[in-house]
Amino acid sequence: MSKIDVAIIGASGYTGGELMRLLINHPNVNIKYVTSRKNKGEDVSNLHPNLEDVDLKFSNPNPEDIDADVVFSALPHGASMKLVPQYLENGSRVIDLSGDFRFSNIEDYEKWYNIKHIHPEIEAVFGSPEINREKIRDATLIANPGCFVTGAILSSLPIVENELVDRIILDSKSGVSGAGVNPTASSHYPTCADNIKPYSITNHRHTPEIREQLRNFGSGNVKVSFTPHLVPVIRGILTTNHSFLLKDDVSVDDIYNLYAEYYKDEPFVQVLKDNKIPLLASVRGSNNCQIGGISLDDEDQLVVISAIDNLVKGASGQAIQNMNIMFNFDETAGLKNVGLYP
Amino acid sequence: MSKIDVAIIGASGYTGGELMRLLINHPNVNIKYVTSRKNKGEDVSNLHPNLEDVDLKFSNPNPEDIDADVVFSALPHGASMKLVPQYLENGSRVIDLSGDFRFSNIEDYEKWYNIKHIHPEIEAVFGSPEINREKIRDATLIANPGCFVTGAILSSLPIVENELVDRIILDSKSGVSGAGVNPTASSHYPTCADNIKPYSITNHRHTPEIREQLRNFGSGNVKVSFTPHLVPVIRGILTTNHSFLLKDDVSVDDIYNLYAEYYKDEPFVQVLKDNKIPLLASVRGSNNCQIGGISLDDEDQLVVISAIDNLVKGASGQAIQNMNIMFNFDETAGLKNVGLYP
Amino acid sequence: MSKIDVAIIGASGYTGGELMRLLINHPNVNIKYVTSRKNKGEDVSNLHPNLEDVDLKFSNPNPEDIDADVVFSALPHGASMKLVPQYLENGSRVIDLSGDFRFSNIEDYEKWYNIKHIHPEIEAVFGSPEINREKIRDATLIANPGCFVTGAILSSLPIVENELVDRIILDSKSGVSGAGVNPTASSHYPTCADNIKPYSITNHRHTPEIREQLRNFGSGNVKVSFTPHLVPVIRGILTTNHSFLLKDDVSVDDIYNLYAEYYKDEPFVQVLKDNKIPLLASVRGSNNCQIGGISLDDEDQLVVISAIDNLVKGASGQAIQNMNIMFNFDETAGLKNVGLYP
Amino acid sequence: MSKIDVAIIGASGYTGGELMRLLINHPNVNIKYVTSRKNKGEDVSNLHPNLEDVDLKFSNPNPEDIDADVVFSALPHGASMKLVPQYLENGSRVIDLSGDFRFSNIEDYEKWYNIKHIHPEIEAVFGSPEINREKIRDATLIANPGCFVTGAILSSLPIVENELVDRIILDSKSGVSGAGVNPTASSHYPTCADNIKPYSITNHRHTPEIREQLRNFGSGNVKVSFTPHLVPVIRGILTTNHSFLLKDDVSVDDIYNLYAEYYKDEPFVQVLKDNKIPLLASVRGSNNCQIGGISLDDEDQLVVISAIDNLVKGASGQAIQNMNIMFNFDETAGLKNVGLYP
Repeated sequence: MSKIDVAIIGASGYTGGELMRLLINHPNVNIKYVTSRKNKGEDVSNLHPNLEDVDLKFSNPNPEDIDADVVFSALPHGASMKLVPQYLENGSRVIDLSGDFRFSNIEDYEKWYNIKHIHPEIEAVFGSPEINREKIRDATLIANPGCFVTGAILSSLPIVENELVDRIILDSKSGVSGAGVNPTASSHYPTCADNIKPYSITNHRHTPEIREQLRNFGSGNVKVSFTPHLVPVIRGILTTNHSFLLKDDVSVDDIYNLYAEYYKDEPFVQVLKDNKIPLLASVRGSNNCQIGGISLDDEDQLVVISAIDNLVKGASGQAIQNMNIMFNFDETAGLKNVGLYP
Repeated sequence: MSKIDVAIIGASGYTGGELMRLLINHPNVNIKYVTSRKNKGEDVSNLHPNLEDVDLKFSNPNPEDIDADVVFSALPHGASMKLVPQYLENGSRVIDLSGDFRFSNIEDYEKWYNIKHIHPEIEAVFGSPEINREKIRDATLIANPGCFVTGAILSSLPIVENELVDRIILDSKSGVSGAGVNPTASSHYPTCADNIKPYSITNHRHTPEIREQLRNFGSGNVKVSFTPHLVPVIRGILTTNHSFLLKDDVSVDDIYNLYAEYYKDEPFVQVLKDNKIPLLASVRGSNNCQIGGISLDDEDQLVVISAIDNLVKGASGQAIQNMNIMFNFDETAGLKNVGLYP
Repeated sequence: MSKIDVAIIGASGYTGGELMRLLINHPNVNIKYVTSRKNKGEDVSNLHPNLEDVDLKFSNPNPEDIDADVVFSALPHGASMKLVPQYLENGSRVIDLSGDFRFSNIEDYEKWYNIKHIHPEIEAVFGSPEINREKIRDATLIANPGCFVTGAILSSLPIVENELVDRIILDSKSGVSGAGVNPTASSHYPTCADNIKPYSITNHRHTPEIREQLRNFGSGNVKVSFTPHLVPVIRGILTTNHSFLLKDDVSVDDIYNLYAEYYKDEPFVQVLKDNKIPLLASVRGSNNCQIGGISLDDEDQLVVISAIDNLVKGASGQAIQNMNIMFNFDETAGLKNVGLYP
Repeated sequence: MSKIDVAIIGASGYTGGELMRLLINHPNVNIKYVTSRKNKGEDVSNLHPNLEDVDLKFSNPNPEDIDADVVFSALPHGASMKLVPQYLENGSRVIDLSGDFRFSNIEDYEKWYNIKHIHPEIEAVFGSPEINREKIRDATLIANPGCFVTGAILSSLPIVENELVDRIILDSKSGVSGAGVNPTASSHYPTCADNIKPYSITNHRHTPEIREQLRNFGSGNVKVSFTPHLVPVIRGILTTNHSFLLKDDVSVDDIYNLYAEYYKDEPFVQVLKDNKIPLLASVRGSNNCQIGGISLDDEDQLVVISAIDNLVKGASGQAIQNMNIMFNFDETAGLKNVGLYP
């Protein structure tokens, strides 16, 4: 079987490293470009020491010279929107891991990202296979979801679509790799370790992204609040989804069965047998989203837990899943590895 | 100045160790007994290696022979209620760190702890200085609050008393020392580290304790949900307190000022200057409760964060604070050390 | 291509879990039995939550009924020697992950393991592919090396074989998963985290195993000391190999080149380009052994660093590598995944 | 009792923070200046969130205007030597925490620090109380030892002075706070956590400092090699001291007794009862150095373990101990807190 040519733009960061880690063993892919302006000419193992045996060097080609079937853009927001149009013009299909093309309402983007969008005319498919699988199949541009967004919407969809709740509080706990490869005060080991840091308590820019996606379902006006916390974990996002059940005659078992049925054909959403509680350790390094621990208290509070690896299902793994759908590969190709537990 | 004699019953565990760590430098205290049935005759440093220079051995006297001004009972629930009556009869004042005497409603205790209470007639003062300082002064028996309870009620009191909210969701993150000194599957390093584990998602036994305390304030019927998470942290409980503001004309600043005013005379509650966000690392080893990060979103969701060290303000430090109040010592005696940061 | 039938005996522990994690994606293998006396009938995901989608249940067949091409015995030492003879009699080839068959000198075994060996007559091939690849090919019984032993001998072989040193000090740092799946005081999170624990400082039972292997090379009487440390890491063994160079005219570059040449055909030993320093994070989850950081000071001290994942190259991965050699599979089959970094 | 005035120069970093944490409760000290060029005018709690209740602001006075009994210089090397002469001229006694005045041989300094010394004429007392207590008493300038140096020399002195060994290998494991408050690639949580990083394998600049101090004892020419490792720990240095016993008739007990006797009057060196193994967790936050785990194998290898908190006995605590000696205070004043375990 012939392989498709892949370009990874901005391959020096963690999502770029993950794309290489996973694509190197993908049966249908040839990694043709891994770009980095700053690290041009260096072995990828200089930055990604797990890739010691991988024979790839960073390059820095002109955007118009990139000749690839699919381009993964792992550039930061703002930078991505400048280059994506060129890749599309080159005839590549593009999967953008930044926030630049995730919003259908450009004002939301400009408000929350505090930046002018220079290509509001370009439309993308929001790359959540569980929501948009058919649209992804034919898309030329995929906006890969934000890491928090993936765990948030997968934990919410069944109850929102079925109008069982009208307000959701997402209390999310994220590993530090979510902050990226560049050292900052908030990723400094002595202050991250043995600590928990809430941040962007009611104003994280993934909030409007979650709201937009969930309001395509059910009543269309579910309220959503979102509070992220930095936890001393390398990878992973655990989302504790709190809501209030609107109906009296619905049991925990009903809700569990609703989730199990909703996701029964999804290759990467695991509604856990026996409603077990998801753990970050169970999904570490894998593309799975675990859902479980569904509970209801005597004051109608409903809790649903989801767990993902922020760099895999929350970023690079989901991007590859989208690629697999776009090119009619086995949807799990390159993504079969199970979580690294312990 | 003469010193009071102190007994620490069940001194082999973490709360017993913390009592020693702090009392060893308390100017008004003589540690007379540190008991452990299993470790009788051993140096305390065998179990608490930080106490290498402390010249104390575990003993196992008969309960009726304990002659002390104050007895700290660090026994597990169920065991404590069997012995506390004897200590009281001996003429000691007692500070009980277990859950045995925390409930005014004995049915609640028996339901949530799933055990028959053998001394329902004994009344205790709930040992929260911020709520009950005057009653503590004259108490003979103090029921020291649960670790989660302390962070939960301190983050809630001002808004509950002022009826600004009618439902609170407490999403708490606890260090592993909260599970005690005995190794179990849930405290096993390979599965705790780099992981987050929600547990007792809607049925933790601290839930009714929080509810009872908070319903003494405001409308008396605030709804309270509580979900604890085990995080890869040694010490500390960070509580993210989510609620929904009932009044339109209240700003974040108003709420911040309300907290600052409410706790302005409290020696161990720090409403952080500039509404900074509390961190577990800031209170590590200290008796402080930090409150801050107060935020309000455009859908009326209010968030308040509190941070304590579960073994200090959440247990042994608060017990010593109670002792200081009971014996008219400086309330901060033995508790002046600031947090160990980083 | 037809697949071989595999049995994993004692599959409830970490090495059993790793065998499943890796074999599930092995192209030439059918997992026929995963045994556990205690967990008979349970889904493997009850103990290994990363294996949620793996459709295997623990069973507990009679040893004489195990009909498999290869049996991995992940039983503890002492237990393994009782059952291995039966598996051999059944006609299976056996890879034993315990210490029971690692010593050619049975007195050494009995002294260091403090147990009587009941089958001293059974001979095994020591399962280090880098030492014994050809013998492994035809072996019926493989004694898979101890976790510390693998990192120790790979960091030592070139300088011992070439008699550049006559004494080696191995200062090893091991992740906590090396202590197994059962919770103990030494694996308790509150005391493992943010701590380092030296243990078995000069009397760890891997010492004689390392000595036996290394004394098959060079002068045959290299002195070897070994001190392990428990570090707050889930997986991995980093070995700092200290020795004293006996020859004056040998440079660091010479030694680096010696290692690079020695291992140039080994699929899983990576002598790092540019003599980079190995990291546990680079090999996490992979079967690689990284070697590098080779340094020499002005007092003739030589340092060599090696890093492995204790559960993979230090146990289950190396066992699979041995199986691949025994059955003439691609030596890297099932072991192609690169390290999980970060 | 009147208090002395203290200045802390460069108080924004971790050693400055620790000086404040400890001095705030020192009975004989008034903190008069805490300086920071960059943070002038800010509350110290902005950088040291554990100091929320401490009413101190950073200032930036002219060096000639600093009027204090003692000046702690917590500036980086290079910067410190420029200012220390002025503080001495002002009439202050100075305790310098940098490396600038630690070497008696200025060529060593200039070689290992790769910088020209601008005040080679200024002499300091090396601030190790266990070596130089009497000289410290009258010193005007103290060169506070390097963090690794303290654990290294305390673990070595008795065997070097008694010429029991002629070569020592120091394999040290350091917490990440040793790298300081500024985020760098090597302190980035995602790569520090769950990892071990050897660095400066044979060329760390603490090597010559250790050699100079130890060669004042015994034969005067003990060989010393030193390899540091970064471990996922916030605070602490554990040193594994490997050597080879030169005498046949010396037992482990003899060596243990030698250490116990050598340090019996030292307030902060704990040769552990029963030769227990030191742990970082036992000294966390305290000024203690624990020594123990002394072991001897059948090939004459001797191992001694020491543990300190790098920010306390390894820096700020030892500086305060030096101040206590200089001003005839109780040597333990301000340093009585025991380790934070767990």
